[in-house]
Amino acid sequence: MAQFPLPPGSTLGILGGGQLGRMLALAAARLGFDVAVLERDADSPAGRVAAHTIVGPYTDDAALRALAAVASVVTYEFENVPAASVLALKALGVDVAPGPEALAVAQDRVAEKQFLNANGAPTVAFSAASTPEEAVAATLAMGAPVLMKTRREGYDGKGQRWVEHPADAARIFAELGGVPVILEAPADFVRELSIIAARGRDGATAIYPLAENHHENGVLRRSVAPATVTPALADQAERIAMRVLQGLDYVGVVGIELFELRDGQLLVNEIAPRVHNTGHWTQDGCEVDQFEQHIRAVAGWPLGPTEPHARVEMLNLLGDEVDAWAKLAQEPETRIHLYGKRDAKPGRKMGHVNRVKSL
Amino acid sequence: MAQFPLPPGSTLGILGGGQLGRMLALAAARLGFDVAVLERDADSPAGRVAAHTIVGPYTDDAALRALAAVASVVTYEFENVPAASVLALKALGVDVAPGPEALAVAQDRVAEKQFLNANGAPTVAFSAASTPEEAVAATLAMGAPVLMKTRREGYDGKGQRWVEHPADAARIFAELGGVPVILEAPADFVRELSIIAARGRDGATAIYPLAENHHENGVLRRSVAPATVTPALADQAERIAMRVLQGLDYVGVVGIELFELRDGQLLVNEIAPRVHNTGHWTQDGCEVDQFEQHIRAVAGWPLGPTEPHARVEMLNLLGDEVDAWAKLAQEPETRIHLYGKRDAKPGRKMGHVNRVKSL
Repeated sequence: MAQFPLPPGSTLGILGGGQLGRMLALAAARLGFDVAVLERDADSPAGRVAAHTIVGPYTDDAALRALAAVASVVTYEFENVPAASVLALKALGVDVAPGPEALAVAQDRVAEKQFLNANGAPTVAFSAASTPEEAVAATLAMGAPVLMKTRREGYDGKGQRWVEHPADAARIFAELGGVPVILEAPADFVRELSIIAARGRDGATAIYPLAENHHENGVLRRSVAPATVTPALADQAERIAMRVLQGLDYVGVVGIELFELRDGQLLVNEIAPRVHNTGHWTQDGCEVDQFEQHIRAVAGWPLGPTEPHARVEMLNLLGDEVDAWAKLAQEPETRIHLYGKRDAKPGRKMGHVNRVKSL
Repeated sequence: MAQFPLPPGSTLGILGGGQLGRMLALAAARLGFDVAVLERDADSPAGRVAAHTIVGPYTDDAALRALAAVASVVTYEFENVPAASVLALKALGVDVAPGPEALAVAQDRVAEKQFLNANGAPTVAFSAASTPEEAVAATLAMGAPVLMKTRREGYDGKGQRWVEHPADAARIFAELGGVPVILEAPADFVRELSIIAARGRDGATAIYPLAENHHENGVLRRSVAPATVTPALADQAERIAMRVLQGLDYVGVVGIELFELRDGQLLVNEIAPRVHNTGHWTQDGCEVDQFEQHIRAVAGWPLGPTEPHARVEMLNLLGDEVDAWAKLAQEPETRIHLYGKRDAKPGRKMGHVNRVKSL
């Protein structure tokens, strides 16, 4: 096992070669680390800025061995890393952070809400269902409308449907693939917020100011941070973040999506055990951004400061919106972050901009 | 020839795989470019964060062809790139920026001072000498002490010696290799300053605030920026920068080292046609740092803003000073930039820190 703090010159492994892996790799390089990316695509956004790319699926034993041969510690950009891959890396003597508890909770929406409620972090009411009959019964018991989501997988609004009438529950259960689902009560929220927080190997924590988020068709479109919130609301969010970090014995950066209800109460929508799209504002708003913070935590370094020095509006560039790069480059307040993806498919996250304003 | 502005997804070539190449590569990646590094060492600091490394000397025809095959435009981290390499790349249809005029002036200390004086940028008095006899005669004519430097090569205080007595001039000429030299009158300066400036392909210019620099044994140890200067001094420096940028029809970032004399006059010590060690403070003091600025210029993008949002003290980490990384990582105001060099030879630039303070 690696000795912490991990010295510069060590190699960090990253499972996943997308934009989050790329921005993690760039942050790791600034601190003097080498990076090895394990990714199915030989020409990935992260692989193109990493010292090593190991080509293969996360489940490939030879690929995991090759990663373990070079990397002192491994992290990931994506919460749906198979538990078996993490166990295989651990068996090869390589520490993986965030750890298996965080992955287990993040991979199962029912386990996630159970963990949150058990740790004093409120969520919407929910039920689990594994058969069409259970789905109907749960909808009747909770009262429609309910939001039916697959327990596993699904992101950016995929794998979820509203059930407006109990009579539709069996059909929608089938349409979602007949797999185990969660049914969630609607959240009568006034605002979507998120909080990016980190915990080091020494148990120290660091929490960024809240971001206010705006989604379209289930995909993040825009974040503004620091969000305008009362001290009481900020306090409530930080308490939730602390409970998540400590409850999971967490190492790394976590993204926690929140609903702000009319009465000022916060509910946790979901947690992502990784750097998070709603934390991209920190690249141009804070001295240490979420990517460096994650690398610091995973490498066993002390965490960095989280105070903002600017107010940032982050806008995702989806699909061919990235074609506006030349116009965006002319805006003095606009910082451009592009991911090097070859193909601007509709809705695909191709980059983002941070519009920087004074605090 | 490439079309400008160069679209993201294009490949930028960098001659040189050291720390400046590395930080340029990281900046290029943020903007969505791929990078190809041409470098003699297969395992270089820049190569490890680039999509392509082409291994070979700058003068290798096959290596230059391989670079030209992937890169739309080429820049360099090092002013002693052979003119023949630039011409070879141009013949292969690849634009090189900054251009050959800048390289020619930066490679010959006599041509440099002639250019500066011709463009209204004052320097110390100087003479050229190509033989021992000329060196003696010039020392007598100028009056000792004079600083004798090789006209070409030499950096960080290497290739230069003080001549205290005319009688020593022939011996020192021989000790410097018997190559053509420049003899410079001493500058009775109170302070060493530098200015980092950029010019785009559209002729637009952007100038960062002055840095105050402290050298030890000819090597930069520390820069503080923005330097405390009068508006008149800042004005004088900016006029010099504009003359250099326009006089060279420059594209890219230039570093201009200045002496501040007792009477408030500025003399140019030397110009470096590349990103510059005294500009590293911009990474944590400005929204667009010198590395992104250089990439923007070379790629034909509009230049970014240069206003500082912090006051920064930059310290170079030389040789085994980099071993203090764990202690430095504990300082909340200290941003760490390490270069991934394998071997901490004495005096070698291994990294730097930016200590960030409020303006």
